[in-house]
Amino acid sequence: MYFHEKTLLKKQIFAGNMINLRVDNVELPNGKETTREVVEHPGAVTIIGFTPEQELLLVRQHRYPIAQDTLELPAGKLDPAEDPKDCAIRELEEETGYLAKSVELLGKFYTSPGFSDEIMYLYLAEELQESKQNCDEDEFVQVVKMTMDEAVENVFNGTIVDGKSMVGILWVRK
Amino acid sequence: MYFHEKTLLKKQIFAGNMINLRVDNVELPNGKETTREVVEHPGAVTIIGFTPEQELLLVRQHRYPIAQDTLELPAGKLDPAEDPKDCAIRELEEETGYLAKSVELLGKFYTSPGFSDEIMYLYLAEELQESKQNCDEDEFVQVVKMTMDEAVENVFNGTIVDGKSMVGILWVRK
Repeated sequence: MYFHEKTLLKKQIFAGNMINLRVDNVELPNGKETTREVVEHPGAVTIIGFTPEQELLLVRQHRYPIAQDTLELPAGKLDPAEDPKDCAIRELEEETGYLAKSVELLGKFYTSPGFSDEIMYLYLAEELQESKQNCDEDEFVQVVKMTMDEAVENVFNGTIVDGKSMVGILWVRK
Repeated sequence: MYFHEKTLLKKQIFAGNMINLRVDNVELPNGKETTREVVEHPGAVTIIGFTPEQELLLVRQHRYPIAQDTLELPAGKLDPAEDPKDCAIRELEEETGYLAKSVELLGKFYTSPGFSDEIMYLYLAEELQESKQNCDEDEFVQVVKMTMDEAVENVFNGTIVDGKSMVGILWVRK
């Protein structure tokens, strides 16, 4: 409890499509007051899935905040009240065109707990079969398949620069 | 270029101590217009450092956005115009009381490129010697030391839930 920060006042600054922003007044452990900036996010899933040929499924897409096309694991935001497991199966199929018979939760983590509550659920998708890619109308995603060894190499050589994808790939590597 | 999103208008919504928020109007590859919410962050470093006894240095601290005390690698935001290498040495000493003779950049990544430009530089700190912990006045940080095996176990068992720390620990594990 030594570290606890007590909320004195919550103030909503912005409500957006993907995120909201609050600035709260808080009391520090030493009794002093300060403010904390909090980006509220609905949470998301990221999925490790292999084709029947044992290739890892990745996606290439544009990330506007960093002005780059990135190579990432399939991922997506939770819909309101959506079970993360259902979200994982849905997003994998939408983005890659592969339907998973089941998914297993490997772990969960926070992408940037210093300023955001975004939680990321990491799933391993099992028994994939080809279905059809079905992105949102305004989502532009290219499927990329590679071996697990290639994916690990792409983390270490700086080709894959997305934190959640790095966690997932480094998690399942031998 | 297929994926490119063209900025039509940048609009600043909020300027804070840690982050700024913009909402931009952009043109999608299909010619349609939409908005993108962007959390601007100055960038940060995270440091893998071992004591002379080969224990990994971690810190326990409160993370207000997720209302939890977390176990993380030492880390910190870049000061304006600060070299990430200098920041790594500074933050390691401030948070843990260990001074590194040198640091080596292992990689860099984006913590949440869907809504933020936060970049994280991952450093391996070398030849540590004991100095003194020197946190900011309003920073409450407890040093925790463990073996590399224990740290990896703490990733897999869900004790360590901070994404950047997971990337760092899984990066250097055998």
